[in-house]
Amino acid sequence: MPLPDAFSQALAERFGKRFSTAEAVRAHHGHDESHFPDALPDGVVWPHSTAEVVEVVKLCHAHRVPVIPFGVGSSLEGHILATNGGISIDLSEMNQIVTIHDEDMDAVVQPGVTRKTLNAALHGTGLFFPIDPGADASLGGMASTRASGTNAVRYGTMRENVLGLEVVLADGRVIRTGGRARKSSAGYDLTRLFVGSEGTLGIITELTVRLHPLPEAISSATCSFPDVASAVQTVIQTIQLGVPVARIELLDTLTVQAVNRYSKTTLRESPMLFFEFHGSPTGVEEQAQTVQELARDNGGQDFEWATRPEDRSRLWQARHDVLFACLNLQPGSRGISTDVCVPISRLAEAIAGTQEEIAATGLIAPIVGHVGDGNFHVVILTEPDNPDQVHAAEALGRRIVERALLLDGTCTGEHGIGIGKKDFLLAEHGEGVAVMASLKAALDPLGLMNPGKVIG
Amino acid sequence: MPLPDAFSQALAERFGKRFSTAEAVRAHHGHDESHFPDALPDGVVWPHSTAEVVEVVKLCHAHRVPVIPFGVGSSLEGHILATNGGISIDLSEMNQIVTIHDEDMDAVVQPGVTRKTLNAALHGTGLFFPIDPGADASLGGMASTRASGTNAVRYGTMRENVLGLEVVLADGRVIRTGGRARKSSAGYDLTRLFVGSEGTLGIITELTVRLHPLPEAISSATCSFPDVASAVQTVIQTIQLGVPVARIELLDTLTVQAVNRYSKTTLRESPMLFFEFHGSPTGVEEQAQTVQELARDNGGQDFEWATRPEDRSRLWQARHDVLFACLNLQPGSRGISTDVCVPISRLAEAIAGTQEEIAATGLIAPIVGHVGDGNFHVVILTEPDNPDQVHAAEALGRRIVERALLLDGTCTGEHGIGIGKKDFLLAEHGEGVAVMASLKAALDPLGLMNPGKVIG
Repeated sequence: MPLPDAFSQALAERFGKRFSTAEAVRAHHGHDESHFPDALPDGVVWPHSTAEVVEVVKLCHAHRVPVIPFGVGSSLEGHILATNGGISIDLSEMNQIVTIHDEDMDAVVQPGVTRKTLNAALHGTGLFFPIDPGADASLGGMASTRASGTNAVRYGTMRENVLGLEVVLADGRVIRTGGRARKSSAGYDLTRLFVGSEGTLGIITELTVRLHPLPEAISSATCSFPDVASAVQTVIQTIQLGVPVARIELLDTLTVQAVNRYSKTTLRESPMLFFEFHGSPTGVEEQAQTVQELARDNGGQDFEWATRPEDRSRLWQARHDVLFACLNLQPGSRGISTDVCVPISRLAEAIAGTQEEIAATGLIAPIVGHVGDGNFHVVILTEPDNPDQVHAAEALGRRIVERALLLDGTCTGEHGIGIGKKDFLLAEHGEGVAVMASLKAALDPLGLMNPGKVIG
Repeated sequence: MPLPDAFSQALAERFGKRFSTAEAVRAHHGHDESHFPDALPDGVVWPHSTAEVVEVVKLCHAHRVPVIPFGVGSSLEGHILATNGGISIDLSEMNQIVTIHDEDMDAVVQPGVTRKTLNAALHGTGLFFPIDPGADASLGGMASTRASGTNAVRYGTMRENVLGLEVVLADGRVIRTGGRARKSSAGYDLTRLFVGSEGTLGIITELTVRLHPLPEAISSATCSFPDVASAVQTVIQTIQLGVPVARIELLDTLTVQAVNRYSKTTLRESPMLFFEFHGSPTGVEEQAQTVQELARDNGGQDFEWATRPEDRSRLWQARHDVLFACLNLQPGSRGISTDVCVPISRLAEAIAGTQEEIAATGLIAPIVGHVGDGNFHVVILTEPDNPDQVHAAEALGRRIVERALLLDGTCTGEHGIGIGKKDFLLAEHGEGVAVMASLKAALDPLGLMNPGKVIG
């Protein structure tokens, strides 16, 4: 459906070159890192302020035009695809760091600021922003998908690290969901309602995020295990002992093989754990030693640990090489990525079952996990032009999620629902989805905010 | 308004002695720890299961009778007062610990389980539930008010420690808001919407809560400071250095004087900080030493620290004696308690201003703070039969909150809104309150769930 003429004219007059309907621009904004077909918006606007977002949203509201917020396009479940057309609001030019409060360890930022930009700005403050989903995503996008990543086991996810938001609602009203107080019991938790709502309830135009002290010292460790179960047992015991581990990553055997092939390394080809510890110099040494003992009791081999930056980088190199190493297993292929999260006591079972499913399909699908949280990713390699393989991969992805749900887990630990997991949301939350739909209807009765995502 | 006959009969037939309209029972359920006038429900029911809660709620829904969930009645802002009459659902007999998953470090409990009961049941597991609001509150009540307490600075509040809830909605539908996965990006965060909603959106009938490893070692420390500002500066530096402090409590001079008088101690009569550190034996020693250096740099005196349980208890005795010591400052008086939370950089200013306000009234009002979070409490002593004093105390409470809001804080860090702080919720959240009201209308269109609390 083309945009109403009066609407396009109004946008063009108001925003000039900051409104575009050019094919290439629309194509860029109708494409993310998922394997779903591109779906182009009818136009793109680059606002520079909350007031400008309000103008666009009010205009869309008046003309019943869908609104899709866009950060950097790194989401993985089709979140920014314009499946119903409409206007993509590209927030990348709202990229100011408004204030850094170092005593309060928070920062106020516009939504287009990426996590790396924020961390660069924090240089010299002794503080950092820990959430690291891999991509240099925008903070608005990360809040919208409730992103997390490798060090959520220590620092939490966007849920725990967003203190407050400014949000433009579907009708153009602007609200502030929280301030800078570390905790509050003042009314319903609107902040957490918008974190993870994927642009379907409103547009985030400012965020207040928590910062953390840069650790005085860091140590890293790696260890190989005879099987996933013994690796997971080591993780469970590490956490139960209260070791404040900052990252624990698992690579399955196939992934280690991929790394060896790609990086010409000679790692033992069995499941591996990668640890990172943050604390005082004695603290991180003590943590590494505790984990070494636990690993040995669980059959761990080749335990190595290091504190010097260059040694730590070397130890973790394999983890950093994972994505390209995996894609290299089947050159020219594309990864269809899924992510699930289960209680950690069920993690070994979830991974073992997933590996059996993978073997039965003949597909190549390495597994990498943020295992301290029970969260793991499967990257299913597919030739984009081989529809049978794509279908098999999609079916495999479904079975992985179904197993996670059977094991008391969630259909997505950190990627979100988008257009890709709406059926699973229903399977997981049942009547809860009706409640979500009624909240959506209350805040966006016309259904204009990122329609077709999460719900409906 | 008396209960409809058919309604009362139905409850009496179904619940027998577990439904009561006796005056004494209603009086007990129409009274909390706030200073607001009692407001009795028209009847009280003690359900034993989610199904029974559904029955009561459906009956209330059919007859348009308000529903007020009741835990142990320890809330502080009139949360359980039946200001519109109706049925108090006393959840104290839904007190089963359903499952403890020690590998996953979570527990599934019914809402009537108190925090002390849960911790007793965890004996021997090496795990504990950290949230400690003082009272031995029910976990359902603590979730409803988003409770926290002394060790939120390390372990978070109920917001961070509830993984999922089972909730009975106003129309009798039952939803599960989350499972046992440590993190999830699956849809809107219904868990966090219900945590802190004070019974106004539904009745919590089951909770899954996070557990934490009992620390291997604990150390405690106390230190006196020349003024609040230097104490707060020590707190800021402690947190900025990444010392993973478990508790940091501030007593102002008046409170220390009260303790000296009540407990016959000879503490230096100036602001005092109380620290607790959790970790490995070397870790907690290191933490105490780091804080000692910071305290000294900020003019701290009489620094003491200890690791043996009996020595730690002795050090913290003054903190534990605070409530009774304060009430003893004006025997026969009652404490009108308020709680605010500000960014920690504004904390010294907030407390200094509050002390000036207190001095101007001539009232006795000691200040105690969970200062790691910027949260502090003022207990204003009043003679219950002296209405002038009560009015002056209420006015003082309002000024304390107004100052906190001016300093970028929140009107309540952990007590909640109830009937006492609705005006401040509006002052703090503005248009956000309209959004809260529309969420309330979406889930409880008849306005039967704990009416008059939080909103409206």
